[in-house]
Amino acid sequence: MSDLIRTIRQDLNEFSADLHLIGSDTLARRHPGEHPDNFGAGVMAEPATPQAAAAIVRWCVENRVPVVPQGGRTGLVGGGVSRPGELILSTARLNGIEAIDPLARTVTVGAGVTLQALQEATAGTGLTPGIDLAARGSATIGGMIATNAGGILAFRNGVMRHQVLGIEAVMPDGSLFSDLTRVLKVSAGPDIKQLLIGSEGAYGFITRAVLKLESFNSMRATALVGVKDATSALALIAHFRAQPALQLEGAELMWRRYFVDSAGERGFDLDWLEGDTAAVLLIEVSAASEAEARTALEEGLADLWEAHELTSGIVSASLDQARRFWALREESDFIYRLHPAAPSYDVSLPPGALDAYVAGLRDRLKAMDPGFDAYVYGHVADGNLHISVIGAGSAEAAVKEPIEDAVYTGVGECGGSFSAEHGVGLEKHRAYLVYGNPARRALAGAIKAALDPRNLFNTGKVPYRAE
Amino acid sequence: MSDLIRTIRQDLNEFSADLHLIGSDTLARRHPGEHPDNFGAGVMAEPATPQAAAAIVRWCVENRVPVVPQGGRTGLVGGGVSRPGELILSTARLNGIEAIDPLARTVTVGAGVTLQALQEATAGTGLTPGIDLAARGSATIGGMIATNAGGILAFRNGVMRHQVLGIEAVMPDGSLFSDLTRVLKVSAGPDIKQLLIGSEGAYGFITRAVLKLESFNSMRATALVGVKDATSALALIAHFRAQPALQLEGAELMWRRYFVDSAGERGFDLDWLEGDTAAVLLIEVSAASEAEARTALEEGLADLWEAHELTSGIVSASLDQARRFWALREESDFIYRLHPAAPSYDVSLPPGALDAYVAGLRDRLKAMDPGFDAYVYGHVADGNLHISVIGAGSAEAAVKEPIEDAVYTGVGECGGSFSAEHGVGLEKHRAYLVYGNPARRALAGAIKAALDPRNLFNTGKVPYRAE
Repeated sequence: MSDLIRTIRQDLNEFSADLHLIGSDTLARRHPGEHPDNFGAGVMAEPATPQAAAAIVRWCVENRVPVVPQGGRTGLVGGGVSRPGELILSTARLNGIEAIDPLARTVTVGAGVTLQALQEATAGTGLTPGIDLAARGSATIGGMIATNAGGILAFRNGVMRHQVLGIEAVMPDGSLFSDLTRVLKVSAGPDIKQLLIGSEGAYGFITRAVLKLESFNSMRATALVGVKDATSALALIAHFRAQPALQLEGAELMWRRYFVDSAGERGFDLDWLEGDTAAVLLIEVSAASEAEARTALEEGLADLWEAHELTSGIVSASLDQARRFWALREESDFIYRLHPAAPSYDVSLPPGALDAYVAGLRDRLKAMDPGFDAYVYGHVADGNLHISVIGAGSAEAAVKEPIEDAVYTGVGECGGSFSAEHGVGLEKHRAYLVYGNPARRALAGAIKAALDPRNLFNTGKVPYRAE
Repeated sequence: MSDLIRTIRQDLNEFSADLHLIGSDTLARRHPGEHPDNFGAGVMAEPATPQAAAAIVRWCVENRVPVVPQGGRTGLVGGGVSRPGELILSTARLNGIEAIDPLARTVTVGAGVTLQALQEATAGTGLTPGIDLAARGSATIGGMIATNAGGILAFRNGVMRHQVLGIEAVMPDGSLFSDLTRVLKVSAGPDIKQLLIGSEGAYGFITRAVLKLESFNSMRATALVGVKDATSALALIAHFRAQPALQLEGAELMWRRYFVDSAGERGFDLDWLEGDTAAVLLIEVSAASEAEARTALEEGLADLWEAHELTSGIVSASLDQARRFWALREESDFIYRLHPAAPSYDVSLPPGALDAYVAGLRDRLKAMDPGFDAYVYGHVADGNLHISVIGAGSAEAAVKEPIEDAVYTGVGECGGSFSAEHGVGLEKHRAYLVYGNPARRALAGAIKAALDPRNLFNTGKVPYRAE
């Protein structure tokens, strides 16, 4: 048992039942999540109540021990990485689903609840969280708030910020901030809890939240459609969104190389795909019945086939087949099996700018090295692209900055973002400083100084003091 | 010409073309809007560019002149009231609609654009702003952002915060903060622009914004339905929201006395209304055609008639009749014709709590004075009630605080808000201090001190320093 744990146990004896402390031996037997250094601190506190969380934070403030909040450790930018001398503060035991209110369409949840657990808990009500993403099995509500997660339904329901009505959090001074608002409409002075959304643990440790719920309709049809570009995919999307009797449930675009390699890895038949197809759109709609959804999808594709030069398409014949369609998009691990060092990015642009951006990106990469290429795929309706640069091989480390520049060129200028839904963490420091908004950065630093004057909360992640 | 105007003209000569300055003589010929003291300062600057706005703010900072931002002056809580020695900063000339992007479903607008002008500008695109409210003809986008406006579509699209993608604003130090993001997904460090939403001009002066647009469907049907309580109305609403082929476009509940007096003032026939009806629900749905919308509405009401003890109902036979239905709800000026001194409130509660709250409110008012009653009406799907206490007559001033207490009792405890969509301004000072969230208030004050250390922006409105 480490000295740190022994000291905390003595000092916070009154919270012993509600404050699990875990040392490096135990952590060594757990999976560290998406970043190998998440457990670097070697000490983790798992408070089971907000009060215990506040107590451990107060202890950390008094003893000047930096705090690293962690949720499901699914973050892709190192936002949960911890170092010796720090304390990991985990939401794992703040995992109650407290109140589902079907009339108000809200739910009160502990920050450590996974998205999938919440989806399962609400399934019987005809309602579901308004946000969904591939990491649903491990991503937690607290982490999703801290990173302002986006996912596959953002084009319709907005991002995590638009789902959050209330937040309870331990602030960096150890006080418990409780604003568990359960209504949509609040105009009662500045809405301070907004600062906790998307600040990656730098402004506080989220313990509970109230979220909106949205109607869920399982009467769906799903298709894969070969398109010539993002513009063509967006025309299909607009067509289906304009139909009052349909709801668009998914619109994911995979440019050819991503789609073909993903299909190859999963043994997915490609005979239906025409040879010159530039990209494949996964589109899903819901309607009053599965038959209506399927008919609307088939008729819509037939109507648009020539005008939008669709090359090929298959409509799912079963839920199981639809799941296989989705797996091609969501199971992206193959990227790192085929290209272990592939540097990966997550940008957003106004959808109308996507084609020019992707063409420019490929040109910039080829100009650096004719062997460079990119997997490009993502949430086309809201302009969020995931990009993995491949063919970089062992040269990757040496050319990291030029590749970053190739990816980020033009993104901010058209009103997009160098980080759409993954955050800044450790990995996007340079991007934050070079491609982030300077005025926004300066104000974020001023507020960090006001809320966390000792700079103890997730220190060294979003670089507040690098100006 | 006042000395102040003369001095500003001299000092900011370079901005003369873009900075209109207006004195008390001119202001005396203009309508001051919803509060008679809005023009109290007697001096107004109307910058025509963000740069001119920043210049006049810098001048105010240097000369320690407090700034009062104003938009459409439709605010109901005195948030735009100004006093001698202050300078009114108006968005009136920041009124360009710059870029409608149908693919991205976004629009870039000047802060001084009215909601109605924006609705008209987007009408040809099949898209519309996701927010709508009765004051659409005069309320401006900047003011709606500053008060986090709600309105009649919030239950579906969220409030103003959920519509705003980008903001440009002059901060209290005179710097121009430009975060004109045009995408939904941004996780790139703390989102500072959120502070400007709902802070009623205390953290900055909004000059431009990027807003989301939503699909607009004019194929509608509208009904007035007599219900026995809010719970019954919410059951109807849930029924129609669960139908995939329908969209709920409006759900406004008017308790009996409001509805009967509104109908009386407008000469609206009440023969159809059963005598014991407790409240009337205005419900509007859209579908693939007007006939489908009307059929779905009629069938839904027939299906639910007995189970939910509906007492009476009429479905509109024309757009003109639907407009008359809406006027009963939206044209609420009659309140002040019939009861000039009626104190008015704007609270939100989880919808399931509405009936108990309204019953308790009436009991508390009757206990104070058997002659007291309340008009109650509002956006039932999101739990937002507008309340005017009537029968108080000349006793109103004397009993203002007890009436406030009767209205606000229990609102915060169930996760609601003492101010749903009107803000704090001047009128809700005591409510902010007594019924607001203390932790939220303290942090709002700390951030005010960090952003506006000279306390020059909309001083004396949201009471940051009254702790």
